[in-house]
Amino acid sequence: MRNVAVVGAGVFPFGRHHDLLYVEMGRPAVNEAIEDAGIDRKEIQSCYIGTTGGVGVGHEILYETGIIGIPISRVENACVSGSNAFRLAWMDVALGLSDISLVIGIEKMKDSSMADVAGGMGRLKLEMKAIAKNPSVANFGLMGPPGYFALAAHRHMAEFGTTKEELASVTVKSRQNAHNNPKAEYQNIMTVDDVLNDKMINPPLTRSQCCPKTDGAAAIIIMSEELAKKYTDTPVWVKGSGLTSSIITDLLSNLSAMPNVKSSRTAYDMAKLEPNDFFKNGFAEVHDCFSISEILHYEDFGWCKKGEGPKMINDGITQIDGDFPVNPSGGLLSCGHPLGATGVRQIAEVLYQMRKDKEVAKRQVPDENLNVALTHTMGQPMLGFTSCVNIFSRDL
Amino acid sequence: MRNVAVVGAGVFPFGRHHDLLYVEMGRPAVNEAIEDAGIDRKEIQSCYIGTTGGVGVGHEILYETGIIGIPISRVENACVSGSNAFRLAWMDVALGLSDISLVIGIEKMKDSSMADVAGGMGRLKLEMKAIAKNPSVANFGLMGPPGYFALAAHRHMAEFGTTKEELASVTVKSRQNAHNNPKAEYQNIMTVDDVLNDKMINPPLTRSQCCPKTDGAAAIIIMSEELAKKYTDTPVWVKGSGLTSSIITDLLSNLSAMPNVKSSRTAYDMAKLEPNDFFKNGFAEVHDCFSISEILHYEDFGWCKKGEGPKMINDGITQIDGDFPVNPSGGLLSCGHPLGATGVRQIAEVLYQMRKDKEVAKRQVPDENLNVALTHTMGQPMLGFTSCVNIFSRDL
Repeated sequence: MRNVAVVGAGVFPFGRHHDLLYVEMGRPAVNEAIEDAGIDRKEIQSCYIGTTGGVGVGHEILYETGIIGIPISRVENACVSGSNAFRLAWMDVALGLSDISLVIGIEKMKDSSMADVAGGMGRLKLEMKAIAKNPSVANFGLMGPPGYFALAAHRHMAEFGTTKEELASVTVKSRQNAHNNPKAEYQNIMTVDDVLNDKMINPPLTRSQCCPKTDGAAAIIIMSEELAKKYTDTPVWVKGSGLTSSIITDLLSNLSAMPNVKSSRTAYDMAKLEPNDFFKNGFAEVHDCFSISEILHYEDFGWCKKGEGPKMINDGITQIDGDFPVNPSGGLLSCGHPLGATGVRQIAEVLYQMRKDKEVAKRQVPDENLNVALTHTMGQPMLGFTSCVNIFSRDL
Repeated sequence: MRNVAVVGAGVFPFGRHHDLLYVEMGRPAVNEAIEDAGIDRKEIQSCYIGTTGGVGVGHEILYETGIIGIPISRVENACVSGSNAFRLAWMDVALGLSDISLVIGIEKMKDSSMADVAGGMGRLKLEMKAIAKNPSVANFGLMGPPGYFALAAHRHMAEFGTTKEELASVTVKSRQNAHNNPKAEYQNIMTVDDVLNDKMINPPLTRSQCCPKTDGAAAIIIMSEELAKKYTDTPVWVKGSGLTSSIITDLLSNLSAMPNVKSSRTAYDMAKLEPNDFFKNGFAEVHDCFSISEILHYEDFGWCKKGEGPKMINDGITQIDGDFPVNPSGGLLSCGHPLGATGVRQIAEVLYQMRKDKEVAKRQVPDENLNVALTHTMGQPMLGFTSCVNIFSRDL
C-alpha cells in the first residue's frame, strides 16, 4: 500500500446558493484546490465525487475545469458521501492506479428533494412496505433526523443527568469557532441563552442545535508519496480510514452507534493510534449534525467514558484552545451541512490547520495539537446507517 | 497489487418486478452468490453496490442477508453503476483492505424516475441553464437515448452503407442467445423481418433494437488470490479495468466514443492483451443498449476497422459459435437493462461461461473461446458520458 498525502484544497463558501448551478460552486472549489496543490490540471488521473443529489455534475465540473477523459466515480452514501469519495480516492492512489486524484464534495440542498433521496415516489411507497416489515427501524423514517436525535438527547439527559445548557454549549463552541470562518454559513456568536431561546424544533433541540440545510462545495487533491515530496514541504498524510455500515437500530437503544465505534476503531488500528493520542497532540472535525451528536461521538470514539461527553464541553477540553480541539471550523452546526460537501470540507480544514494557512489564522489550533487529526461523518441512507472516520498526520 | 478472482455469482431473473421491493430482488441474488462461492457470509468484509435509484438498499439487503457492520459504498454512474461498483471492489481487494468483497448491482426501472435521475425538479431546471450554456451537448438531453442513437445509426448508414437489415441482425443474434437464457426478459426467437416490422421507436431503430426498461439484480463475490485458491478450482481472474469519463460530444461527430476507446485501451494494457487476442480465444459482454451501439463498440474496441462493424455480424463472427462470441447472454437488448444490475450480470455471465456451468449449458461459448473475456458498459449521467471495460481470464 503506497503512502498518500493531501496537498491541496478548495472550499466554495457554504451558504444558500439556490440560483447557482452545481458546476458554478464546484468549478471554483476545484480550481482553488488545483492552484493550492501547485499542479497542472492535466496531471490529475482520477476523480471521485461525493454528492447525494448531483447526478452527472462530476462530469460537468471536470469539463468546465478542462479535465477530460479520466475516470469519475460518483458515490452516494447520504451524509457520508464526501468522506466515502475521499476514501475511494485514497484507495485508488494507495493501489497505484493514479498518482494524483481529485476529490469533490458538493450539494445543493434545495434540489435534494425527498423524491431524489428516496429514489422517486414509487420507491417511497415500497419503503413503507419495508418499514412495515422492520418496525424496529421505523422510528427514524417516521420522525426524521431532528426527532430521532431529540429522543437520543432525552435519553442522555435521563440516564446521565445531562442538562439542556450542556447541550446548548456545543452550539456556543461551534459558533465561537465559526465566527472566525468566513466560509461558514452562520458566523454569529451565541450564548447559551441565545441557543436555548432559539426557535424550538424538537425538544430539547432548538434550531441552532440542528445543522442547517446549506449549499456548498469542497475539493481536495491527493497524491502519492513520491509526488507529494516533489510538490510540497507540508504534506498531510493519510494514516487510517474506517467505513462501517448497519441499519438504524442501535443509537436509541444503546446511546451508541456501532458504525461510529467500529469505523473509529478500524481507523485507529490502521493509524496505530489510540483515543488518548489526540489529547495535547491532535484535533478533530466530527459530524455534529445536532448538539447531542457531538457529545455521543466523544463517547463512541473513546475520548471519554459513556455519559461523560458533556464534561468535555464543560471543561473546555474541546474548545479551540483546549487539550483536544473539536470542530475548529465550526462544524456542521455553523458551517452548514451540504451532505456530500461536508466530509471533503473537513479534510480541507485539516490541511489548512496543519499547514497553519492564513485561511485559518483566526481559528488556528495550537501548535501542539497539529500532529494528528481525525475527520468523521455519519449518515442515514433511508433505513441504513453509515459512518466514516479518516485519520491524518503531519508525520509519515 | 494483489491478484483478485471472481468466485461466485447470483442473478435474480430480469423482468418486470414492479411489486417487489429492491431487497426482495437483491436478497436472493446475494444469497445465491454466497452459496455459489461456498463461503460463510461472515467472511464478507466489504460491499459495493451499483444502482441509480436504490438509495440505501445496500444497507437493507445486507441486513436481510445477515451481513452487518461492514463498509458499504453505493456508486451511481448511470448505466455504468454496476461495472463501477465492481471496479471499486476489485481495488479494495487488490489493495488488501478486504479479502472477500460482495458486489451488488440492482435497479427497479419503474422507480427510477426522471426526478430521481435528475436529482429533483429543481435540478432539472438548473440543467436547462447548463444545456443553454453547452449547446453542443444539448442534443442528447433533448432527444433522449433512442433519438441520439438513431442519429448515430443514420450516420453509419450514410457513411458506410450499413443497412437496416444489418442493424436488425444484432437483435436477431441477441435473441438467439437469449432464447437459451431463462433469466433474460425476452427469450423469443426473432427474424430480421420480425425486428424490422416491430413498432418503430426512432427510425431506423425499432422497439426490439432498443433495450427494454427492466427490473433486476445481480451479485458477485470476489476474493484475494490466497483465498480463491482455497475456495475454488475454477477462479476467474481480474486482468484489467478501465474507466473513462467525458461529456456527450464525440459519439455523433466521430461515430466513436472517446471513453469507450480509452477505457478499453487502459484495460487491454493492464491485461497485456490486444484486440486480436480475443478471436478464437475469448468472448465479450458489451453494452448493446441499441443495435447500432454493438456495431460501434466492435469498431471502438479495435475488433474491426471503422465501418466494418456490420461485417462482424454478417460473417457470423460474433455469434455464439463464431470466432469471437459477443453477448452470449443475449445482452441488454434481450436480458433487459436494469441500469445498475447490468454490469454485474455481465460478470456473472463470464463466471458461468468460464466454469462451463449448467446455468449456461444451452448457450455455452466454445471451449477455445473461454480463455479471456471482456465486459463493457457505458452510460450518460445527465450531460456526462462514462465507459467501463473490465477484462477477465481463466489463467492468472
